[in-house]
Amino acid sequence: MRIIGYEWEGAVHVAARDGEALIPLGPVAEFWQDPDAALEAGLRAGTRIPGASVRLAPPVKPSARILCVGLNYREHAAEGPFDVPEHPTIFGRWTPSLAVGDTPVRVPVDEEGLDWEAELLVAVGRPLSCAEPHEAETAVFGYAAFNDITARRAQKLTTQWTLGKNADRSGPMSELVTRDEVGELGRRKVISRVNGQVMQESTTDQMIFGVPDVLAFISRTFTLTPGDLIATGTPAGVGYARNPPRLLQPGDVVEVEVEGIGAVSTPVEDHRAGVHSAGIHGATGT
Amino acid sequence: MRIIGYEWEGAVHVAARDGEALIPLGPVAEFWQDPDAALEAGLRAGTRIPGASVRLAPPVKPSARILCVGLNYREHAAEGPFDVPEHPTIFGRWTPSLAVGDTPVRVPVDEEGLDWEAELLVAVGRPLSCAEPHEAETAVFGYAAFNDITARRAQKLTTQWTLGKNADRSGPMSELVTRDEVGELGRRKVISRVNGQVMQESTTDQMIFGVPDVLAFISRTFTLTPGDLIATGTPAGVGYARNPPRLLQPGDVVEVEVEGIGAVSTPVEDHRAGVHSAGIHGATGT
Repeated sequence: MRIIGYEWEGAVHVAARDGEALIPLGPVAEFWQDPDAALEAGLRAGTRIPGASVRLAPPVKPSARILCVGLNYREHAAEGPFDVPEHPTIFGRWTPSLAVGDTPVRVPVDEEGLDWEAELLVAVGRPLSCAEPHEAETAVFGYAAFNDITARRAQKLTTQWTLGKNADRSGPMSELVTRDEVGELGRRKVISRVNGQVMQESTTDQMIFGVPDVLAFISRTFTLTPGDLIATGTPAGVGYARNPPRLLQPGDVVEVEVEGIGAVSTPVEDHRAGVHSAGIHGATGT
Repeated sequence: MRIIGYEWEGAVHVAARDGEALIPLGPVAEFWQDPDAALEAGLRAGTRIPGASVRLAPPVKPSARILCVGLNYREHAAEGPFDVPEHPTIFGRWTPSLAVGDTPVRVPVDEEGLDWEAELLVAVGRPLSCAEPHEAETAVFGYAAFNDITARRAQKLTTQWTLGKNADRSGPMSELVTRDEVGELGRRKVISRVNGQVMQESTTDQMIFGVPDVLAFISRTFTLTPGDLIATGTPAGVGYARNPPRLLQPGDVVEVEVEGIGAVSTPVEDHRAGVHSAGIHGATGT
């Protein structure tokens, strides 16, 4: 199934897509208490609402942790240049930085532009504490395409990357696709395009640390809960490492795609563009 | 006023303390939409509920960002040893790592112990985007004492500190005290004690980057919203930098205190201690 979020009476609810219709699956925080059960109950109830008129939102609970794996493709580490890390390098995003497709992102006031990072996003479906990789693998609820849009100046101002990874609406995600619908992850293309031109193209089998290993690793320090998200790292071809460097400017449109999973497109605006509240989401571009 | 959170019908609500009684201020996400207005409305309504029987919880909205400032006291940077940074070094916690007083924290399975970090916590009260320091100063809603309990091995395993800063229930906070009740921040003692023995003792005027500067700095990359929290950094005297090193072991009790604001106490348990769900909070120790 393809899973989306939508705004309903001031709150975010979750639904499964059924063609043009949506199957409601409940308020987002309740859905993620047990997403498999909520999905099953929603399908059994069989309610349908029209999908055309809803305002889409990320199907993510407000307390979700977005755990991003840095330097997880060998050629991206090399272009840094960074050494290939011995352990997954984890940094964080908070949910207010997330957006759905076609939501404009603004270049923060002190940045010369923004950078793209095409990634596979993984949603956790069951609690994981001190998990083994094989247990972690079956705890995946689903996948999405994700653009870890980065304010490079802020990212590299100090040793810690957090600030530059949380610009307003800088984390666009596609619809979530459930694990059973995706099947074996295997060798999926991960692509970014700027105004239609391919900037990154690699495959998910090139990750240094695979999804089960990353989940198991994190779960030895804290308990992952359903709804937590893992951004699994980006391949080579980001803008700042190109020769000459290229950063996203107002008027550009950046798109990321993960083969067989989804795509998400984001227009770039000047920081002086009309101020959006953090709660406003555009229509999806998946 | 002193502001607390409590569990009510499966959700977290906010209240102001009035002696033994509590003045309800609404569900936590609604409260933080406009905390000044919610506080005023609650005081005007004048409802009182008995405070003795509630189960306390952090008065923090699930989507809040906990922005931690690393190396913000000169002597703590030196004990690292780290250079004094030119800009605030920001790393992040997510809300599931927060706890109220007297909630046990467990040593994660791969750690040889946990480390203490006494800090002043600041709660944002108004949206801040590209703010000047003088605007940021008046946008502070309140303050709390905070212990940024750290899994040092996980923190230092890679260049990014995030993993080691988010162990389950590793972020105990005291009650929040409103800015008008605290008055001038000035020179407040920041203290940690392990089993009653003082480990850190400094004053808030020793911060390298003050609260208004940190808020203004962050707001140039993303919009701070009411309810976001800033952990303003810890002074010298942490466990790993002592000679010999000293880490918290099961059976220890660690307390942090910020003068005139609050204190919070945390017992340490083995990782095999009874499993707590992330939603369980102990009674406050403030």
